[in-house]
Amino acid sequence: MWGKRADTVVHGVEPYNAEPSRTALAGRSITPLDTFYSRNHGTVPVLDPAGWRLKVDGLVDDALDLGLDELKGRFEHHTVAATLQCAGNRRAALLEVRDIPGEDPWGPGATSTARWTGVSLADVLAAAGIAHGAAHVAFEAPDRAEAASPPQTYGASIPLAKAQGAEVLLAWGMNGADLPPVHGAPVRVVVPGWIGARSVKWVQRISVLSEPSAGYFQAVAYRLMPADADYDAAPPGAGLTLGPVALSCDVLVPDDHARLAAGSHDVRGYAYAGDDRGVARVEISLDGGAGWAQAELEASEGPWCWRLWHARVDLPPGEVRISVRAWDTTGATQPATASQVWNPKGYANSSWGGVTLTVG
Amino acid sequence: MWGKRADTVVHGVEPYNAEPSRTALAGRSITPLDTFYSRNHGTVPVLDPAGWRLKVDGLVDDALDLGLDELKGRFEHHTVAATLQCAGNRRAALLEVRDIPGEDPWGPGATSTARWTGVSLADVLAAAGIAHGAAHVAFEAPDRAEAASPPQTYGASIPLAKAQGAEVLLAWGMNGADLPPVHGAPVRVVVPGWIGARSVKWVQRISVLSEPSAGYFQAVAYRLMPADADYDAAPPGAGLTLGPVALSCDVLVPDDHARLAAGSHDVRGYAYAGDDRGVARVEISLDGGAGWAQAELEASEGPWCWRLWHARVDLPPGEVRISVRAWDTTGATQPATASQVWNPKGYANSSWGGVTLTVG
Repeated sequence: MWGKRADTVVHGVEPYNAEPSRTALAGRSITPLDTFYSRNHGTVPVLDPAGWRLKVDGLVDDALDLGLDELKGRFEHHTVAATLQCAGNRRAALLEVRDIPGEDPWGPGATSTARWTGVSLADVLAAAGIAHGAAHVAFEAPDRAEAASPPQTYGASIPLAKAQGAEVLLAWGMNGADLPPVHGAPVRVVVPGWIGARSVKWVQRISVLSEPSAGYFQAVAYRLMPADADYDAAPPGAGLTLGPVALSCDVLVPDDHARLAAGSHDVRGYAYAGDDRGVARVEISLDGGAGWAQAELEASEGPWCWRLWHARVDLPPGEVRISVRAWDTTGATQPATASQVWNPKGYANSSWGGVTLTVG
Repeated sequence: MWGKRADTVVHGVEPYNAEPSRTALAGRSITPLDTFYSRNHGTVPVLDPAGWRLKVDGLVDDALDLGLDELKGRFEHHTVAATLQCAGNRRAALLEVRDIPGEDPWGPGATSTARWTGVSLADVLAAAGIAHGAAHVAFEAPDRAEAASPPQTYGASIPLAKAQGAEVLLAWGMNGADLPPVHGAPVRVVVPGWIGARSVKWVQRISVLSEPSAGYFQAVAYRLMPADADYDAAPPGAGLTLGPVALSCDVLVPDDHARLAAGSHDVRGYAYAGDDRGVARVEISLDGGAGWAQAELEASEGPWCWRLWHARVDLPPGEVRISVRAWDTTGATQPATASQVWNPKGYANSSWGGVTLTVG
């Protein structure tokens, strides 16, 4: 539909939600446009760049109303390599613990990395002037989500301190090309290190607020609740509003239940720690976590990017589970099982990654 | 020795290393001076404040040489509530997995919280002017560590980006009083959210560098290595140099193997996520992690502080293990066992906390 690879896993056509297969995602530190995952809540808008306007209002000294040429002409351009990761990445493993009706079974491919080109949101906010009482920055887009309660256009907000980080962009470029419509053309927000839901596509209004956005996607969706919470009965704002991405990793090749010859193989994957915390090491186990070997980390594209890794393993014949866990730069590592992190909407699966192979 | 409570657990007298008991630490969001843990690598210097000088040099435009009155008079004063936590906090549980000769068996009390008063390091660095190529800020103190290799005075460094955070202080005040000698009088560095080893006491020189400090305590000690690494054979700089504190928590009352009557009890503790990532929730289990109940989080003293929590539990007669785990604001939680996070020097024990009680 949007120029995808043949081995894309499509979770839904309208709205369009799709992730690359493990094989498609593997081995490239920058994800090509035809492979990058797509997460949408409404119909993809196809906007005329010449007619696009960006309003900046709320708790600012001077509201702005900018066209694309003004945005490009008035502010310094920056390119930041950054991984985006959906809060629902690796939900499929949570659904095996307990089903979550209505939520898509995302595998490990709801994460991808691109080089984003645009202007720093901080520079645009400085041009508008931050007024007293400002604490959050909200983004509004025109795509309408019928599944929201009530149905509404998409939006999100981030705290002002994060919005003022130099890494947060209003981007029109992706891997050196113009953004395609499915990824937010003509301009999207890119919030490196935070759940993808905050990187609002097709952004058309930025409002500086004293409180987080009260919209459905900020106050109701994308909340992490304890396993025993009644999500539907909880008031808006209850639970944890997700921000930085949790530590996670997975094996990217070969696919689950692929058949491989016994013997020596290169196993590849990614690991990612939210914000710019950084991955310190990755370990791989063929015996369910009794013993671990260190994987080799590949060079990073920058502090806001995943770390790709590879490891040479000797696969015995039979059914083999390859488990992988990452450590972040604080020395923290991941819980073993999806049941330990199950939650009512199936977000932030930070448990070990892995695949099960039939070898021989 | 330094005005401590009677129930302090003393690991060594010279150098003086001591932590409060679980009971002593419990229930107070700010730790009193007579309770705050002490981690030292040499003899505690007792310095004359009138003779103390602070040199700021290295990659700066103008080197500084400041007395205490100049430091206090020239820069704005700030008070920041912050938890300090030793990288070796909760090492005792790691030693039960496999012994680490020469390393003290710190319990959960190598962490404490105070209100620190001083000036922002960022302001002092700005007054000196940061020169081209600056990337790290090193701190030097006069206390000599005979156990270092070779023996040397204590020092550490942090990246410039962290050093420029408004929360990093050159502090002379602790809970409204002057710093006592054991906590760094007349002036210490306080690096909120990072391992205590970077909060250098008795600081007398600050050097702006292009690389991290090459000293023993930065390049050799306080490194996290995989369980199977040969620590002594590894070259300086190999492994992970610890910065932000790992997610951790523990039960603070009653003590291990205390005898309690069966029935309903208030259980208390702390949880802490490194940097200002924040603790989102804490859960408690009486059955080894099969079932969890949420603890109640108490009000935070600020973004750089631990979260105290309490939970009402019904303790059955017999031997009871109370387990506790925390979740940070990314949705990440902790590994179950100390064996999962064992490492050659016993740092960053991020596994579940807990105590074993004899009830009845």
